[in-house]
Amino acid sequence: MADPVLDDISHRRYNPLTGSWLLVSPHRTKRPWQGQQEAPSKNVLPVYDPQCYLCPGNTRAQGDRNPQYESTFTFVNDYSAVKEQQQEYQPQTDKDGVASLLLQAQAVTGRCYVLTFSPKHHVTLADMAAAEILPVIQTWTRIYASHLSAAHPLKAQGEKALASIPANPDGEVDPPRGQLRYMQIFENKGAAMGCSNPHPHCQIWTTSTLPEEPAKELAQMAKYRAENGRHLLDDYAKLEAARSERVVWQNDGFLVVCPWWAIWPFEVLVIAKRHVRALVDLTDEERLQFAEAVQEVTRRYDNLFETSFPYSSGIHQAPLDCTEQEAETSWFHMHFYPPLLRSATVRKFLVGFELLAEPQRDITPEQAAARLRSCGGELYRKLLN
Amino acid sequence: MADPVLDDISHRRYNPLTGSWLLVSPHRTKRPWQGQQEAPSKNVLPVYDPQCYLCPGNTRAQGDRNPQYESTFTFVNDYSAVKEQQQEYQPQTDKDGVASLLLQAQAVTGRCYVLTFSPKHHVTLADMAAAEILPVIQTWTRIYASHLSAAHPLKAQGEKALASIPANPDGEVDPPRGQLRYMQIFENKGAAMGCSNPHPHCQIWTTSTLPEEPAKELAQMAKYRAENGRHLLDDYAKLEAARSERVVWQNDGFLVVCPWWAIWPFEVLVIAKRHVRALVDLTDEERLQFAEAVQEVTRRYDNLFETSFPYSSGIHQAPLDCTEQEAETSWFHMHFYPPLLRSATVRKFLVGFELLAEPQRDITPEQAAARLRSCGGELYRKLLN
Ligand SMILES: [Zn+2]
Ligand SMILES: [Zn+2]
Repeated sequence: MADPVLDDISHRRYNPLTGSWLLVSPHRTKRPWQGQQEAPSKNVLPVYDPQCYLCPGNTRAQGDRNPQYESTFTFVNDYSAVKEQQQEYQPQTDKDGVASLLLQAQAVTGRCYVLTFSPKHHVTLADMAAAEILPVIQTWTRIYASHLSAAHPLKAQGEKALASIPANPDGEVDPPRGQLRYMQIFENKGAAMGCSNPHPHCQIWTTSTLPEEPAKELAQMAKYRAENGRHLLDDYAKLEAARSERVVWQNDGFLVVCPWWAIWPFEVLVIAKRHVRALVDLTDEERLQFAEAVQEVTRRYDNLFETSFPYSSGIHQAPLDCTEQEAETSWFHMHFYPPLLRSATVRKFLVGFELLAEPQRDITPEQAAARLRSCGGELYRKLLN
Repeated sequence: MADPVLDDISHRRYNPLTGSWLLVSPHRTKRPWQGQQEAPSKNVLPVYDPQCYLCPGNTRAQGDRNPQYESTFTFVNDYSAVKEQQQEYQPQTDKDGVASLLLQAQAVTGRCYVLTFSPKHHVTLADMAAAEILPVIQTWTRIYASHLSAAHPLKAQGEKALASIPANPDGEVDPPRGQLRYMQIFENKGAAMGCSNPHPHCQIWTTSTLPEEPAKELAQMAKYRAENGRHLLDDYAKLEAARSERVVWQNDGFLVVCPWWAIWPFEVLVIAKRHVRALVDLTDEERLQFAEAVQEVTRRYDNLFETSFPYSSGIHQAPLDCTEQEAETSWFHMHFYPPLLRSATVRKFLVGFELLAEPQRDITPEQAAARLRSCGGELYRKLLN
């Protein structure tokens, strides 16, 4: 049991994955709130939208036509944040060194993909059964495997995955021109997350540099391992499973928790129960278990406020090009960062004190986990006549 | 001159204040954009709103009545994120140490204030002349001074400020019950920043702990000073003033720049030109110069898209209770984090890749600075019929 005092007093909690603190103010949940009664939202989208640039057979902004795909479909983003080829950049140097200290830049190359989860315009992961999410995970795995460096410690695992997972021609991508360092798979869902197209899809950005967040996590996990001789997320998953107060759901392969250090009101962390370093380590059975975990999280999210729940989610795993030690330090997990707080329209803003000083939350992760535990069952939309 | 290659290629820039990187994708500013023509927004608010909990003479949620204040007005937030008195918390310990490593918490006490900038419901800092912003800075200074610890290296400066700045009875606050560690002054402006009340005001959160952002900055500034024997922000302000491409505006006391490492499209940093450690170090003349800088930033923001520009802003300065070394390391500055990107309605979202991997921006800080340099002059609203 968490000390019940933490339900009442303002306190900070430490995030060992990033090495930073956040402020928790549980007493503020006692603020007056004129709970707006909102009707459960129905799905009013068509199965196919002729205006959608992701629907099968439609033409995209730069003239490319989507295939009549039947499962997933992957293509290079027409407006990628990074490109594979660009001019060379030589960092400037100056004689007294101030500019080279304070105006530091590095060139970044890479390739950005868009991946649709389904040909159906109107579904979301919450509407899809685990068996329908499985092809998404298979596509992620094949794409990850095809980007691994030749000398990667997981290269053999990658080859095995490519040999055993059936190829989906519409989900395949050409190998990148040069070796890249990291692959960030992430989904932005909902207008609240700046996503204007409801067609179910994610993005995959591969970059020549290791981005801040996974770099921080890898450094923290390496430090923990050096100091304690065990994996941070292994210890954490076992501790949470034993305490159960922050556990939302679990199966044999994955634990779903509202982490002790959650910033977003209903933030969730999906953790592999054994040492999975990356997608290519997952067995056939574990891929389905992971699909079940994703399904449970997204369905519970939608059920919580009877709305299509917005979030950003993403996978952290071993870099595409890494040392034996980095691969061994990596522990497969998925973050879900949803902004909704009390209803379909009341959201949390990361502003003010949070930008200038420290992230802050009101309801505790234990309260959030209790809410998410209790809203399993059929997707609410399926019960609306 | 910045290397013009950086206007075309994707690259990362380093923020020496926080020790982290961000991704810049300037080529994406060439994305097609159906530039929506929006009419300049007028001010349609009343001078006094009987429903506003900040207007003079009105009653707040918990029954307190605001005085008929004529300048600034400060009160303890009715729903503070931290409180001065609460139950004791003893961090849990466990025999194998895993919980004490992974479930770390600290109690936080403190006091949160709300401070109105003006009795007029309908104005913003952009509408107020520097001479009208001065009383706000005077109130901030008096409140900061009254919270300094007895042994604080700036205590004498604080006493001097309290003696020389006229007291405003409605802006004064009682001293806190116990000594606090840090004071974060910040403003959330606009519905885009989750601020529901347009009455011009800021918040001041004082806490028993040093929050993440100022802690990171202090550590980075201390490291820079140890390694280079100079102040990071002193070197940086001089470098920017010499290069001028990221400078928005300056006077004798303050430099306004779009920093090299800006995350938000039109992010601005206001830096003291000499070693000002905190508000209490400012001379009478410098307080007015600071008011001018705040006026220039907020007026230019409004002029940029001819709208009331949303932002979060805040001051970083020496902690309320600190060592001689921490006080010496501190360098007074103010951050402005505005979300608007291309118009009054097109905003940047910090989601997806940014939450999972690394902050990202499209237009360069040099392009942003050029836009802000060119939109000085009269506040656009004053020129509408
Ligand atoms: Zn992670
Ligand atoms: Zn700062």
